Amino acid sequence: MASRIGKNITVSIFGQSHSAGIGCVIEGIPAGKRIDLDELQAFLTRRAPGGMPWSTPRKEADLPEFLGGIVDGVTCGAPLAAVIRNTNTKSADYDELRRVPRPGHADYVANLKFHGAQDVAGGGHFSGRLTAPLCIAGGIALQLLREQGVEIGAHIANIAGVADDAFVLHGLSAEDIHRAGSKAFPVNNDGSGERMISAIAQAREEGDSVGGIVECAAVGMPAGVGEPMFDGVENAIARVLFGIPAVKGVEFGRGFEASQLRGSQNNDAMRVKNGVVAFESNNAGGANGGITTGEPVVVRCAFKPTPSISKPQHSIDMQALCNEELSVHGRHDPCVVVRAVPVVEAAVALALYDLLLESRMD
Amino acid sequence: MASRIGKNITVSIFGQSHSAGIGCVIEGIPAGKRIDLDELQAFLTRRAPGGMPWSTPRKEADLPEFLGGIVDGVTCGAPLAAVIRNTNTKSADYDELRRVPRPGHADYVANLKFHGAQDVAGGGHFSGRLTAPLCIAGGIALQLLREQGVEIGAHIANIAGVADDAFVLHGLSAEDIHRAGSKAFPVNNDGSGERMISAIAQAREEGDSVGGIVECAAVGMPAGVGEPMFDGVENAIARVLFGIPAVKGVEFGRGFEASQLRGSQNNDAMRVKNGVVAFESNNAGGANGGITTGEPVVVRCAFKPTPSISKPQHSIDMQALCNEELSVHGRHDPCVVVRAVPVVEAAVALALYDLLLESRMD
Amino acid sequence: MASRIGKNITVSIFGQSHSAGIGCVIEGIPAGKRIDLDELQAFLTRRAPGGMPWSTPRKEADLPEFLGGIVDGVTCGAPLAAVIRNTNTKSADYDELRRVPRPGHADYVANLKFHGAQDVAGGGHFSGRLTAPLCIAGGIALQLLREQGVEIGAHIANIAGVADDAFVLHGLSAEDIHRAGSKAFPVNNDGSGERMISAIAQAREEGDSVGGIVECAAVGMPAGVGEPMFDGVENAIARVLFGIPAVKGVEFGRGFEASQLRGSQNNDAMRVKNGVVAFESNNAGGANGGITTGEPVVVRCAFKPTPSISKPQHSIDMQALCNEELSVHGRHDPCVVVRAVPVVEAAVALALYDLLLESRMD
Amino acid sequence: MASRIGKNITVSIFGQSHSAGIGCVIEGIPAGKRIDLDELQAFLTRRAPGGMPWSTPRKEADLPEFLGGIVDGVTCGAPLAAVIRNTNTKSADYDELRRVPRPGHADYVANLKFHGAQDVAGGGHFSGRLTAPLCIAGGIALQLLREQGVEIGAHIANIAGVADDAFVLHGLSAEDIHRAGSKAFPVNNDGSGERMISAIAQAREEGDSVGGIVECAAVGMPAGVGEPMFDGVENAIARVLFGIPAVKGVEFGRGFEASQLRGSQNNDAMRVKNGVVAFESNNAGGANGGITTGEPVVVRCAFKPTPSISKPQHSIDMQALCNEELSVHGRHDPCVVVRAVPVVEAAVALALYDLLLESRMD
Repeated sequence: MASRIGKNITVSIFGQSHSAGIGCVIEGIPAGKRIDLDELQAFLTRRAPGGMPWSTPRKEADLPEFLGGIVDGVTCGAPLAAVIRNTNTKSADYDELRRVPRPGHADYVANLKFHGAQDVAGGGHFSGRLTAPLCIAGGIALQLLREQGVEIGAHIANIAGVADDAFVLHGLSAEDIHRAGSKAFPVNNDGSGERMISAIAQAREEGDSVGGIVECAAVGMPAGVGEPMFDGVENAIARVLFGIPAVKGVEFGRGFEASQLRGSQNNDAMRVKNGVVAFESNNAGGANGGITTGEPVVVRCAFKPTPSISKPQHSIDMQALCNEELSVHGRHDPCVVVRAVPVVEAAVALALYDLLLESRMD
Repeated sequence: MASRIGKNITVSIFGQSHSAGIGCVIEGIPAGKRIDLDELQAFLTRRAPGGMPWSTPRKEADLPEFLGGIVDGVTCGAPLAAVIRNTNTKSADYDELRRVPRPGHADYVANLKFHGAQDVAGGGHFSGRLTAPLCIAGGIALQLLREQGVEIGAHIANIAGVADDAFVLHGLSAEDIHRAGSKAFPVNNDGSGERMISAIAQAREEGDSVGGIVECAAVGMPAGVGEPMFDGVENAIARVLFGIPAVKGVEFGRGFEASQLRGSQNNDAMRVKNGVVAFESNNAGGANGGITTGEPVVVRCAFKPTPSISKPQHSIDMQALCNEELSVHGRHDPCVVVRAVPVVEAAVALALYDLLLESRMD
Repeated sequence: MASRIGKNITVSIFGQSHSAGIGCVIEGIPAGKRIDLDELQAFLTRRAPGGMPWSTPRKEADLPEFLGGIVDGVTCGAPLAAVIRNTNTKSADYDELRRVPRPGHADYVANLKFHGAQDVAGGGHFSGRLTAPLCIAGGIALQLLREQGVEIGAHIANIAGVADDAFVLHGLSAEDIHRAGSKAFPVNNDGSGERMISAIAQAREEGDSVGGIVECAAVGMPAGVGEPMFDGVENAIARVLFGIPAVKGVEFGRGFEASQLRGSQNNDAMRVKNGVVAFESNNAGGANGGITTGEPVVVRCAFKPTPSISKPQHSIDMQALCNEELSVHGRHDPCVVVRAVPVVEAAVALALYDLLLESRMD
Repeated sequence: MASRIGKNITVSIFGQSHSAGIGCVIEGIPAGKRIDLDELQAFLTRRAPGGMPWSTPRKEADLPEFLGGIVDGVTCGAPLAAVIRNTNTKSADYDELRRVPRPGHADYVANLKFHGAQDVAGGGHFSGRLTAPLCIAGGIALQLLREQGVEIGAHIANIAGVADDAFVLHGLSAEDIHRAGSKAFPVNNDGSGERMISAIAQAREEGDSVGGIVECAAVGMPAGVGEPMFDGVENAIARVLFGIPAVKGVEFGRGFEASQLRGSQNNDAMRVKNGVVAFESNNAGGANGGITTGEPVVVRCAFKPTPSISKPQHSIDMQALCNEELSVHGRHDPCVVVRAVPVVEAAVALALYDLLLESRMD
């Protein structure tokens, strides 16, 4: 059940890069919720390819049509179904890929798994384009979370080794986490952003690509949300994040760095301040034992560099079973990290909203 | 459904650190499989506390009794149910914790989530002791995987900043991955191991604790296993791994490091050698698009330092709502990483075996 | 997760009677399966309202568009997504129903459950129209089952007390079960059919409606398919069947009648004939302990009479909280049983195909 | 995942008739609920074989031990795990059954499904004995439902064609539905009960068995609970009920009889009485569109006669593949319906409690 996720709010994602459409079915949103469709569209536009130097020249308006679940802008209790038509498809670009897989892509493994019947055009169901319906569902979750005081925002933490100013783990505000999101190039520090843009441009010129890290935080999550063992905050978020193409690592709070610390350094001490429990730090990244502490949930995920590059690479001919050189010439992002920022927000929102619903069972 | 995981083979874990018993129910193992119970016991013993300087003085034989699902050592198609009795419990050690939560532990959030009804003794259902039933299920999965040519092994990659020799990503053999597992202190490089042991001892003397990293690899996974989007190799493994207490980060192949590379560096080029497809590297860590490439699956997970330390820490009194100093005096591991090595193997085995079963649907 | 069903092949149904469209997402169909879209359309046409005296005057072509999952008529491994546009909607017919619920319908309970936000037009998500996407999924399952030698057919067993010739439980052939399906009025005995048509016409004239029973059989299911306890043949089929609006009872084999028999009468004795195991009867209806015996699976389900009738009925005004008389004047089937015949086939096909896939795990 | 059921409260059932134990793991019960263990034991005793003429001579105290999830009689939020030891096993009785399957039993199909590895003793995992852990979970659900004003009770509606006084569908009280449950032979009309007992005794003398019908009702379910399509009241209850061995039919309200009625007869008219919505009848059996109406939920399920009879029957030798005569001599109930009464209550309770939890999402 690869393309579905969630327990209380489930999202089923369908479509391929060059099929008639892509979309999602969302079950579990309570009835009577007003969805701001303009705000949703604005969120989707953050992900849409926009002719920026770091993104694919493929242009898609990405306007979702709701086939069900919403009446006059308000959820009616039935599943939400949204479709985005694929219009700007050039399948001829991909004919060679049926024979010669792109290194770093799913072409080769999809051919094995689906016995040659996979939709090869544009990467088929493996395309980054499938993050658009993820953003529809996540964009709605973001609105529903905000209604409950939870804000989620992300920024590019690193591209090609150039670091942005990180979120502070402790004392992070809603304003802090939204600072980058509204920018065309979503970083906290625009100087870093310019160096990143240069690095992307340079890679592109060389027919190459770069990767990076997205950092995302949720502020306002009430304490006590999440489940022990396999349905904790980290499990839930990680499971969605690894569904975004190119993600190869996920860490929370101090993450891998915490493995080098002493307990006395890493433990988040507690104090009572004005009759309220307060933490003195947030190395945990907002969750202990899988359950929210009330501190911001902070997660970072690593994106590998875009595998589609025009530089010649060693590949094979899967039919003739011989070696081939491959230069990928389709329309690709030299760096997916920029457009991934809202996708990461969407993924985190879906995971947290599902857990927030689950906490009604406590 | 916090304590259950899996689709085709599901594991339901129950019990608390100081309840009558802990155990698991495993559904989905095909009938007619002979389980080597001696080998399973040997695997469990690798996790069991053994009076070593890096582990808790609590002694538990961890002998599972099978209540159902196995007849004369062979699975009969009914769910496997295994129980380990808790014998060496000293609940009095934990009385104070009902009031004063241990920083870095789930005590505080559990109190919120369960409205004070949580089992506080020994960490209750949040205890690392619950990894014993995970190892029962995972130990069985390891045997079933081996039957199909898949071997899984792990080692301590890092403790307190001291690094072991890493697994090579490409060209890793079954022998390589099992080198560490049989040792009392499971590292590839015993010199590194000794420095780690010293670091643990020093932390313990100072009433403190240390964290670390476990690296795990699966060799022999056939190519083409795994599902797109949310049920890929990475999603599945990460979801189980984050169920192990103290895990705060998970990465595959080059992981976070890949985010700094160019596509031309990170892509795993392919060649045909003697009529067989071969990769020239394995930066992907054995999976693209969530699907196995046939190369070793390599994952690393970061463990934070044990939160229970005897050094005084800032905490609070949850009832009186005032500040408290806390020194934790129960029986704890100054470093959970050592005993976590087989647990990580178990987790990876469960995830991969589930996907291997799923591939029967292709 | 009300509108989704299945484990190995899952179907997510979306849309409302008068929303932009209705449809389904089907996950789990193996890649490389050719779907005969003409045959599928012919199957959907059996369900579609066709201006017959026993069906609604609403006309819908019910032509599904596939947005994903199929390339050149062959499944590609990605989820299948199909949409049927709603064109012939007259929502004005339903304005009164927001205030005055139709007795026997979901209007009243939907208003409570969804706090007044439900889509009331045409019954919204509760409409019988939602069986069209069920038939898309089921129609595909029927094709996939036939490929494996399993044939499914149904007939009207009873309408308004008039009985059709029942399927024989033992010795039923594929020819037998398909006899009725191709007819405009799907009965085995056309004389009975005429009496049923008269009963429907008479009820309609009186502003009333009638109910009935559909009997369905699957021939060719291999023995040994199905799961113990909660995922047996009966559980799986019943769970889908009760998803068809108006179904109030489900029985297998001799069903309720078996409760009056002696064990010696009801047990299906076994013999070896020409080296092959054969049953001497099929009172079990093709399953024991939830697992197929190899005999035909035979199920009957009872449909209550259509609740929408033009005869005046006692109802209430939910807003003013006072009594109301209601005469329902929209476009309705005076008897849903006729069009339900392919829907029951679709439901049974989905349940059995899912179990057949599951048996790959044995 | 045959032996697990539920979404918000899940029950995993394990064990075989003659394995070391049987039991269940229950996830999803909110923390802080006091479980009355004496009352639970009394409920289990209603199901336990008690030396009555209609039940097996096998004696089992059926005392559950809780391994986890309960501390001092109160749920702690961790999964509940309960075990009943199997003590009174006589496996030698079953040796022949490995070769010669009992007609009407799962012996033959289990042998196919599990390739001969099934646990044949006492019916293994298919044994009616597995309804004991179902009653543990259901007995707890009954207590949690009562806390919310929902009462569930059942009675023998029919044995061997002898009918008990049926529940009235409309105007049924909590007192009405509990009238039978406390009796050794749970019927409303003791005169009918005596005739049933005679029919059972006669069948037993003749080496035969009888079947029957259990009717169950839930009073006090709030209106608006349940989900559309596949997770409605009927789907949920039916799915659990068909998990009870020997159940072959399930109907709600007027059930199959409703198929013979006119809409004007079957629709439950509504009135406002003293400012409150009231139904004038309850032919629907408490649910429309899968959602509770507030009227009593009434369900009937048909049990086939016990397949194990001492009368000689035609069977086969599965190894030699030749005909055999079989007389079953183990310890069996000549009629399972009597002991099934609390089992049906347990099944209905589990389904309704799960839906009641789900309604927190509305």
